[in-house]
Parts: sequence; structure tokens; C-alpha cells
Amino acid sequence: MLGLGAMGDALASRLLGVGHDVTVWNRTPGRDTKLVERGAQAAATVAEAVVAHPLVVACLLRHPSVHQALDPVVDELRGRTLVNLTTTTPDEARELADWASQHDIAYLDGAIMAVPAMIGTPGALVFYSGSQTLFDQHRHLFDSWATSVYEGPDAGMASLVDLAMLSGMYQMFAGFFHGAAMVGSEGMTASEFAARQTPFIQAMTNGFAEYAAVIDAGDYTAPGQQSLEFSDLTHIIRASDEQGVNPSTLAAVQALISQQIDAGHGSEGLARAFESVRSVKGGRPAGGAA
Amino acid sequence: MLGLGAMGDALASRLLGVGHDVTVWNRTPGRDTKLVERGAQAAATVAEAVVAHPLVVACLLRHPSVHQALDPVVDELRGRTLVNLTTTTPDEARELADWASQHDIAYLDGAIMAVPAMIGTPGALVFYSGSQTLFDQHRHLFDSWATSVYEGPDAGMASLVDLAMLSGMYQMFAGFFHGAAMVGSEGMTASEFAARQTPFIQAMTNGFAEYAAVIDAGDYTAPGQQSLEFSDLTHIIRASDEQGVNPSTLAAVQALISQQIDAGHGSEGLARAFESVRSVKGGRPAGGAA
Repeated sequence: MLGLGAMGDALASRLLGVGHDVTVWNRTPGRDTKLVERGAQAAATVAEAVVAHPLVVACLLRHPSVHQALDPVVDELRGRTLVNLTTTTPDEARELADWASQHDIAYLDGAIMAVPAMIGTPGALVFYSGSQTLFDQHRHLFDSWATSVYEGPDAGMASLVDLAMLSGMYQMFAGFFHGAAMVGSEGMTASEFAARQTPFIQAMTNGFAEYAAVIDAGDYTAPGQQSLEFSDLTHIIRASDEQGVNPSTLAAVQALISQQIDAGHGSEGLARAFESVRSVKGGRPAGGAA
Repeated sequence: MLGLGAMGDALASRLLGVGHDVTVWNRTPGRDTKLVERGAQAAATVAEAVVAHPLVVACLLRHPSVHQALDPVVDELRGRTLVNLTTTTPDEARELADWASQHDIAYLDGAIMAVPAMIGTPGALVFYSGSQTLFDQHRHLFDSWATSVYEGPDAGMASLVDLAMLSGMYQMFAGFFHGAAMVGSEGMTASEFAARQTPFIQAMTNGFAEYAAVIDAGDYTAPGQQSLEFSDLTHIIRASDEQGVNPSTLAAVQALISQQIDAGHGSEGLARAFESVRSVKGGRPAGGAA
């Protein structure tokens, strides 16, 4: 296990807990004390850690630190398996997969949807992509950390799904902050707002599957949809301004809606706002499904 | 009942269903046929509808249509009660409350958190603000439509809570569209993404109460918070760009985070992003709680 930040520590701790032999390394010394007390082997160098086992797990600080740690030990890594759980962009994961391939290192990319405290609990989720053979081979170990989901042969896919889900989460939190600021401008506490908003938002997530069905069918004119014109947020932005609350995140959403209304699609469903964000490349033939 | 759009029709229908005498009016004729078949009285003019009962409910098309419909019958409205369920901004609701007060019309503002099909079901929610006496007096009738919540004497508060909650909802949907576009750029369907995102987002709504507690306490340095620096979304925006997906809504969220990091608060909790949106007025002493 390379990297003993909060997440690496949790992953190593769980492996020890289920009876694996674990060797640990961290760039900054002193993070391994508790793990060593519980039976982990401490490695003084990356090379020492890498040669100790056929399976190397990296959980480092973003993409550059992976090359910093592993470029000097590329000969030691040859013929071994690298499971990289470091947070990267999809293109960074693909770059690492190519780099690994060039050096005869078997590579699987992973992306963790959990905070460290969740590792080893049923709520934690880890996406993997790259070699399905490697996934199947080590799945038993992966399942000790979290629910393991294989997302296909494109090494970037695990990271892409992870970042897509996080994007939705952060936008939801920003929406909560904006709503809390609106009612807060008249003295309602954020906690009073949370009590109203939590069940409402939970219920509204049912809309995801409905919008998704429209997007996948590609027919924004199908009956029963709330129209873009009806979804115009101008009055909410005006109300936000009137209350002295910064409407910038909501205004960015309205810009997506306005773009479609201005293009003549105002009577079509709200899901058409997807057309304002979707890939201009129309998908990459190289990766994932068609 | 003034206004027989989809929502006005649902409200009138429910009142008939629980045994009330209902007189209906709509600007465009011909919308009342089914309601009249079920026992509603049809009014040919607004004045005729207004004088038929002591309680007048309006569900019209935004603020201007309320004045268009009611300014000509202000004498007929004198001494009666007006419950206005038309979607307005808080300031528009306050303006109507003032106008009503000047003409000796008892006024209660309402904001509906439901689609028409939900009226009369437990999941529907209607906020009211203005006179608590009026709310208590007519609550039994209101409860036949939805769960009724009184939000205080400021007539704008019902609308403010409604718009704040809707803002959060639309930002969540925009986040879903962005995430679906990211994975869609590699061929994952929106439905496949919805299957992953729905339970995740539902679980993450538990964060609302945690962030709210931090906001209400005003201490973004309390331990155990995910820092703004850790929440930096630059790598997700870069990944979105790399996939050809428009990152504008997520970039608006990052702007709130960057503003706080640039001001030297990067090691403080993510909830501090609230400070980038909160009211510059610091609340209006005239309205709601202190």
C-alpha cells in the first residue's frame, strides 16, 4: 500500500483486519506506526514496498505524485499488478494505463466513492476500470473495502463515473447553500431549511430516472414533460437579487435553459437542458460502449 | 376559484371532492366543463365569482395576471378573504399583501410544492404566510389539498421558502444533467447513470443538516469538516473539458469555493461557500424572525 493519507490508512487497515499481509509506505515517514503495531510491514522506500508483493495498491495525492513515486521503480514494478486508487481525471488514468502497459505492468484503475470512515462498510462504493481479468482476480480483496463495480475496459471510466457523481453532489450542495441563503435573508436558520429541503430533495431524485429515460430516448417532445418555458428560473433569480443573495449558480442553470429556449425549444421538456452540456465530441469511439 | 390552469383545476377538483361549494372562473372560457359536471358553479366574470363566497382563492399565471384579474373587482373583494396561490416572488407577494390591506381585503399568500397530480395526496406541501388568523381559520380546507405549513407573518415568506427549495431542486437536476453528459461522452446511458446517482444523492442529502449546523454555528473552523481546498473542483472541470462536456454549472460552484480560498479560508470547511452567496443585506428586520 503506497500512500497513507486518511484514505490509504483506512484501506491498509481494512486489509490487515481481514487477514492480508500488508507492506506500507508513505512519502512522509511516521504515518505507519499504528498499522505496524497491528502487523503491517513498514517499507523504508517505494522499491522495498513494491518488491514485497505481486499486488501494489497506490492511493496517493492526485496524478503527479503517482509518477513521482513510481517512475523511479518502474523496473521493480515490471510483471506486477498496480491498482491505482489515486484521484485522477479520466485522461490522467488513461495516461497511467498507457505508461503501465509500456512497462509491462498490469494496471487497474479505481475510484472511491466514500470517505475513509466508510471503508469496510456496505455503503462504500469503489468503481474499477481497465482489465476485467485483474478485476475478477482481485475482487475478493476489493470487496473487503467496499461494494466493487466494474465499469469497463477504458481505464478512464472509473474516474469518469466518480467525477460525474461528485459533480452532481457538489452542485446539489451549492443549491442547498443558495436556498439556505435565500431563506436566511429573512431570518430562517439553515437547519430549519435543511429540515424542509432534505425530504423534498430525496423525493425529487426520482426525477433522475424520468429525465434519463427522455434523454436516452432522445425525444424531448414526448407528452407529460414539464416544459423548458415552465422551468424558466428568471423569477427565482429575480427573487434572489431582491433578497440580496448571490444567484450565480442558479443563473448558470438558467443559461442552459435559455440556450434551448432561444434555439426554439421552449415548449419541449426540461431534460432538453442536457443538450446544453452534452459532449460536443459525441463520445469517443475508443472508449466504453458504443 | 380564480384560474383553472392544471393546478387551479386540481385545487377546485379536490374541494368538490371533499364536499365544498365551489364557484370557478377562468380567463379563457371552456376550462370549467368537467368541474361544472361535478357540481361547480360557473362564473362568467371575475366579479360574479368573487361575490359568490367569502373566501376567494386565486391560482393565476404569475403576478401581473393577479392585478389584471383583481384590480377591476377591488370593490367586490372588500371585506372578503383572498388566498393567493399564484407563483410570485416574495416581493410580489408583499406588494399584493399591501394592495389587499389598502382595500380592506384579508390576504394570505400560499406557495405550492407539488405538481397538480399530487394535490390531495400526503406528499403535497403548501406553505402559507401572512395572517396567522386566516391560516388557522381555513386550515381545514387547506389540509384537504396538501400538508399545510405556516411560515410566519411576512407575506413573502411562503414564496421565499418555495423558491429557495426549487432553486436547490433545479441545481440538483443541472448537476444530474452534467454528470450524465460526462459519462455519456464515453457511451454510458443516462439511465445507467441515474441508477448509480439516485441512491448516492439520496444518501448525500444527509449532508444538508451537517452543513446547516456549521452555518448556523458560524464556525467553519470546527474539526471534522471537509476543507474547501479538498473540495476544489478544478480537476472535475478539467475532466469535463477533456470529455468535451460544458462545465459551466460546475464552474459556477467552483467560483464560490475559489472566492473563499482566495480570501484565505482554504483550510476551513466546505460550508463556508455559503458565505459567497449569503445576503449582503444581512436579513431584513421587517420580515420573519430576527
